[in-house]
Amino acid sequence: MTEQKSSNDGRRPELGVAMVGHAFMGAVHSQAWRSVARFFDVPYTPRMVVLGGRDAERAARAAERMGWEASSTDWRELVERKDVDLIDICTPGDSHAEIAIAALEAGKHVLCEKPLANTVEEAERMVAAAERARERGVYSMVAFNYRRVPALVLAKRLVDEGRLGELRHVRATYLQDWLADAEAPMTWRLRKEQAGSGALGDIGAHIIDAAQFVTGQTITGVSGLTETFVRQRPSDDGPEAVTVDDCAVFMARFSAGAVGSFEATRYALGRKNAMRLELNGSKGSLAFDFESMNELWFHDGEEPAETGGFRRIVVTEPDHPYLEAWWPPGHVLGYEHTFTHEIADLLTAIGTGKRVEPSFADGLRVQHVLEAVEQSAKNGSMYRQV
Amino acid sequence: MTEQKSSNDGRRPELGVAMVGHAFMGAVHSQAWRSVARFFDVPYTPRMVVLGGRDAERAARAAERMGWEASSTDWRELVERKDVDLIDICTPGDSHAEIAIAALEAGKHVLCEKPLANTVEEAERMVAAAERARERGVYSMVAFNYRRVPALVLAKRLVDEGRLGELRHVRATYLQDWLADAEAPMTWRLRKEQAGSGALGDIGAHIIDAAQFVTGQTITGVSGLTETFVRQRPSDDGPEAVTVDDCAVFMARFSAGAVGSFEATRYALGRKNAMRLELNGSKGSLAFDFESMNELWFHDGEEPAETGGFRRIVVTEPDHPYLEAWWPPGHVLGYEHTFTHEIADLLTAIGTGKRVEPSFADGLRVQHVLEAVEQSAKNGSMYRQV
Amino acid sequence: MTEQKSSNDGRRPELGVAMVGHAFMGAVHSQAWRSVARFFDVPYTPRMVVLGGRDAERAARAAERMGWEASSTDWRELVERKDVDLIDICTPGDSHAEIAIAALEAGKHVLCEKPLANTVEEAERMVAAAERARERGVYSMVAFNYRRVPALVLAKRLVDEGRLGELRHVRATYLQDWLADAEAPMTWRLRKEQAGSGALGDIGAHIIDAAQFVTGQTITGVSGLTETFVRQRPSDDGPEAVTVDDCAVFMARFSAGAVGSFEATRYALGRKNAMRLELNGSKGSLAFDFESMNELWFHDGEEPAETGGFRRIVVTEPDHPYLEAWWPPGHVLGYEHTFTHEIADLLTAIGTGKRVEPSFADGLRVQHVLEAVEQSAKNGSMYRQV
Amino acid sequence: MTEQKSSNDGRRPELGVAMVGHAFMGAVHSQAWRSVARFFDVPYTPRMVVLGGRDAERAARAAERMGWEASSTDWRELVERKDVDLIDICTPGDSHAEIAIAALEAGKHVLCEKPLANTVEEAERMVAAAERARERGVYSMVAFNYRRVPALVLAKRLVDEGRLGELRHVRATYLQDWLADAEAPMTWRLRKEQAGSGALGDIGAHIIDAAQFVTGQTITGVSGLTETFVRQRPSDDGPEAVTVDDCAVFMARFSAGAVGSFEATRYALGRKNAMRLELNGSKGSLAFDFESMNELWFHDGEEPAETGGFRRIVVTEPDHPYLEAWWPPGHVLGYEHTFTHEIADLLTAIGTGKRVEPSFADGLRVQHVLEAVEQSAKNGSMYRQV
Repeated sequence: MTEQKSSNDGRRPELGVAMVGHAFMGAVHSQAWRSVARFFDVPYTPRMVVLGGRDAERAARAAERMGWEASSTDWRELVERKDVDLIDICTPGDSHAEIAIAALEAGKHVLCEKPLANTVEEAERMVAAAERARERGVYSMVAFNYRRVPALVLAKRLVDEGRLGELRHVRATYLQDWLADAEAPMTWRLRKEQAGSGALGDIGAHIIDAAQFVTGQTITGVSGLTETFVRQRPSDDGPEAVTVDDCAVFMARFSAGAVGSFEATRYALGRKNAMRLELNGSKGSLAFDFESMNELWFHDGEEPAETGGFRRIVVTEPDHPYLEAWWPPGHVLGYEHTFTHEIADLLTAIGTGKRVEPSFADGLRVQHVLEAVEQSAKNGSMYRQV
Repeated sequence: MTEQKSSNDGRRPELGVAMVGHAFMGAVHSQAWRSVARFFDVPYTPRMVVLGGRDAERAARAAERMGWEASSTDWRELVERKDVDLIDICTPGDSHAEIAIAALEAGKHVLCEKPLANTVEEAERMVAAAERARERGVYSMVAFNYRRVPALVLAKRLVDEGRLGELRHVRATYLQDWLADAEAPMTWRLRKEQAGSGALGDIGAHIIDAAQFVTGQTITGVSGLTETFVRQRPSDDGPEAVTVDDCAVFMARFSAGAVGSFEATRYALGRKNAMRLELNGSKGSLAFDFESMNELWFHDGEEPAETGGFRRIVVTEPDHPYLEAWWPPGHVLGYEHTFTHEIADLLTAIGTGKRVEPSFADGLRVQHVLEAVEQSAKNGSMYRQV
Repeated sequence: MTEQKSSNDGRRPELGVAMVGHAFMGAVHSQAWRSVARFFDVPYTPRMVVLGGRDAERAARAAERMGWEASSTDWRELVERKDVDLIDICTPGDSHAEIAIAALEAGKHVLCEKPLANTVEEAERMVAAAERARERGVYSMVAFNYRRVPALVLAKRLVDEGRLGELRHVRATYLQDWLADAEAPMTWRLRKEQAGSGALGDIGAHIIDAAQFVTGQTITGVSGLTETFVRQRPSDDGPEAVTVDDCAVFMARFSAGAVGSFEATRYALGRKNAMRLELNGSKGSLAFDFESMNELWFHDGEEPAETGGFRRIVVTEPDHPYLEAWWPPGHVLGYEHTFTHEIADLLTAIGTGKRVEPSFADGLRVQHVLEAVEQSAKNGSMYRQV
Repeated sequence: MTEQKSSNDGRRPELGVAMVGHAFMGAVHSQAWRSVARFFDVPYTPRMVVLGGRDAERAARAAERMGWEASSTDWRELVERKDVDLIDICTPGDSHAEIAIAALEAGKHVLCEKPLANTVEEAERMVAAAERARERGVYSMVAFNYRRVPALVLAKRLVDEGRLGELRHVRATYLQDWLADAEAPMTWRLRKEQAGSGALGDIGAHIIDAAQFVTGQTITGVSGLTETFVRQRPSDDGPEAVTVDDCAVFMARFSAGAVGSFEATRYALGRKNAMRLELNGSKGSLAFDFESMNELWFHDGEEPAETGGFRRIVVTEPDHPYLEAWWPPGHVLGYEHTFTHEIADLLTAIGTGKRVEPSFADGLRVQHVLEAVEQSAKNGSMYRQV
């Protein structure tokens, strides 16, 4: 007999997952849940139990398409299920606190999309719930996926190894252009009550977290300036006021003395997803642009001037973070793989009992920075401690 | 009741797939088979029935990991199964002909890795089998996956639309560096009897096919030069002679008058997967490098000189080939997605009865070029009709 | 007879030039004075009459080397000479006002290095003198040479033509690294009394002027943050305190609504002269980096998304600003040519009676911005009208 | 007394120069003659005695503009002048041999534009004359100016130091586009009798010389393919046949085993002066593109894979070749400075009695390669020893 059935052999237990929300984030999370155990030696095989969504028919179609066994219109039902071990929250920010806290209290691990919440107050309650849950062995994580870009993990590694020396400059921008057209219609992302803020919370949150992650320092104070270029946009009920920022520029100081320059905008025509980070230290420098996510630029200041220069590291070597799981050098990864890495790390943490980051506390830290930027911007850019 | 089970509803029939080989190509094909119906409206839902491999234990482990229902050590068994509709061949080139012809004769669709075969003779027999099968509605495709890089499909579109005008130059290189270390051990890829040729067939085949695909022209003649830099390498049984080329450089003429320059090597230190293509026409030019696979560089010669220049198109817009299925602009794709696209196109062709390329005849065309390069190289680089 | 003597034939009158200062700026100005009439049809042939410097021997050697007919240790003597029509001031900022005002009052045209002065008060007196002189046909110009980079003149042209639409973002950095080494010795550039300020006035002044020049808008308010990373440096008399900023980060608003982000530093390890400017408007975007000074990146938002992208314009076409005077396309220019262009424009203005910019008033405008940044930085980054 | 006259003080003797030809090359050579002693400590101060040109009036105007004391329509007169020590030949290739040999026999040093001659026979006579003259202390040099690009001199230095290890690949292209328009009129450069060959001799000569220079190896054999895309072009007398190649592609072997790929074309739309060179060795790689002439890309294969990558060296450090004479780091050089360097080296050689390259023998070596490419192209690309 030459054939044999495949089986899990009981070697890896299953971990039941329920996800709430099935738009862009839901689609990419689903792909990661489906793929993670194919490439990483995670301690659990995820079982995609049920998908939550507000509209029954759309949720059902999404569940089928994305590979979930069932769908539901009631997220509370998901939280209560015995066969669900983890809740993955992919909804807009205004529902994060309620769902996450309920899930944690029900003993479910939580993976929550960023920004953690729309306000500091909500975020604080979430952190408290996460800490209580943690004592019972329940995990939580906020989905700042850029922490799982191999090039940025490599960047952090080089910083940690001291290759940059004492850090002087952090330069971070997140540039998109999907709102550059003043005639583009209103969306929930432009309403303060749903989105919390505009470019600041949507994409500014990413560069705040990434900067703190890579540098290993916290932002201690900021001075902010925000602007809304297009004050109203067409909606089904006629022109509607835009109630969030269109862009946020801010300056920052870091806990160990570096000076930061940040900018988040969705009006940078021609820049599609230019999440950029540049660090300058006393011994070296780093530069990254997500549009070329497989590359990290490193300048080693210890190199003689004659042969010194920013080198383009193609971050696809087996020695690079996460890469051993994938393809040979030069066979590049894409956006979705940052989520696969994120979930692999979360599953590993749950299985091994080790810590995993970014925690809800990390999410709260970002929230504090966001709030300080907003307050500074309202107060004539006056510098504000975080 | 808020919950409902997911089901395929019988709307999309299943298509049983068996795959032979589970190394690098097997892993990436598996991911594509798992993912394709999640993102593309393909007419079939692939069912990953069985995986073939020579070693029972390794095949079983691979099947489990990659998501195949069963494994087998006998590819003939796969070909005979009733629940298998398609054979996906991911083995080295010396077994392609036998497996593919058997599968086609058994009425199975075939997806076959490149190069199509190790010799023109084998390739010709495969084409004959494919054509006979085609009359019975059985499909075959050779897996030149670079045809499914969105940037290269866009390149072809621009050529087809006449944006380049009359084509003068084709400049193609495929540069890797994994053999640059002269101490790296012997592998089957360096033995002529298994691999057919060295860099020429392994990666040169890709740029030949890609150049013919994008230009819409065939290569009509070549002049070649090959070299083996490291003549023997360590193996378990002591030093073993390398019997294939380490690099191949060749010049070509195209059917509509363009002149081509080609180079394939695995000794270009620092180049990881630099599959590059540049075209110059009377009206425009294009440039591509797989290491930055989400970018296509286009120079529009109709633009006034004052503002003319190569523009970096980030090929992630909804209007770009395949992109509507994926993420918002700037959220880049990776290597694996070229295979997802390939399989989506194959399933669509099978379901709709339309043609799909690259056919085995396309694979044979590449084989003819490879052979002509080899013959020319043996004959003092004398120009040789293809 | 086949030979004839060359002669100016009286067609172009001479214009006597005296220069004060012969360090870096003096060397590059000298090259421009020597070269300008060789490439541009300027209305005067400059005669390099006399070079001023504090040390007689060094000034004499410099004069010989740089091509000046004589040297002098007394700038007042230069100003009084009948055969001198123009005074070129290449000294540190603390002497600009005195020399420039004396020269203008003596009826000499003045070209003055940037920043115009070390304080707003000095700059205002210079502007007043320049305006009085202008009524008598005497010209003055501040040497913001980056206004004569062909790529930036092209940028301005595209902005003026409306190719960017309504401007939203200005992103400007000037990054150098020559102070990154904390052990590098003290220099006059780090003493407030001589240099006025640090990175802010030295290189920040350039990006302020360039941003206002290219956008055609003025900066109306700023919020600034400065830092001194290395508080003291070795000097001949032991450690000496650094009394200027090492870096300045600031945010700005422009007169027509754009938001600006600026950064000037000499601690950006690996960045040699990264004077960068990026503009995003409602219809297009531009990006420039002086390290690649022959390139301008333009994104035309009117282009269909399918083929849109930042294009690299190699600014060496005959249609490009100043380029007709030079070499065929692709035969690139260097730093020194920005000075040749500057002097060509100044001579042309003098000869034709037309206006020339940047005027001393432009220099004062920059001074106002510099002062506002400093004041804001001292006052907790509070936003400050310029 | 504060003023003193500048004088040469007799410290540096003058060297009388006569130049023949005043088109593009004449203009750039003139600028170099005017500038060289301003920046380099050369043993002579060049005196620009006389300019030769066929048309008296045009030559006189050029002399005045370019700074020559006199003009002449008879090059023989120049060669005979007592106050002329060096003849600089900037005419088309068909007159090089006659002028150069006459000059050398008259005891004048010679700087001759490339290609050295239009035929091997002429080049051989020139070499013989140069060698005879050399015995009498008379110098000759062929003006392959790309040998004086600082980045390429640095490249050679790195090769010589063994940083690349054993060389495997040479990849050289020279891409321009000024003939891409099929309606562009006839010029002497497209007539075989005047130009010798087309893209091959015009720009192919540069990459042949540069490749041999940087690698320190000679080309031992070639296989060539040439094409003429536009067979006739408009001239004043109606359509005229193009009698030279429009492009030349060729493969080469180097004396120490490297394999080369070359291409020269003036039809690469969008490429303005892309003189590119890439080298791959067993220990490192280098890449260069003249359009970014201040940059050299170096991959150090000894670097751990984790941080390895092509680094962009901005070749403007004081330690870089020729740079100490110029500006601070990042203040880039341009095309013309390659000629200043060339002349500085020639003057230094004359003054010190040391050798200088490229010699006429180097020029002849290039000529042999050009001829071998042409012969191979005529003979079905058959490989041909050089």
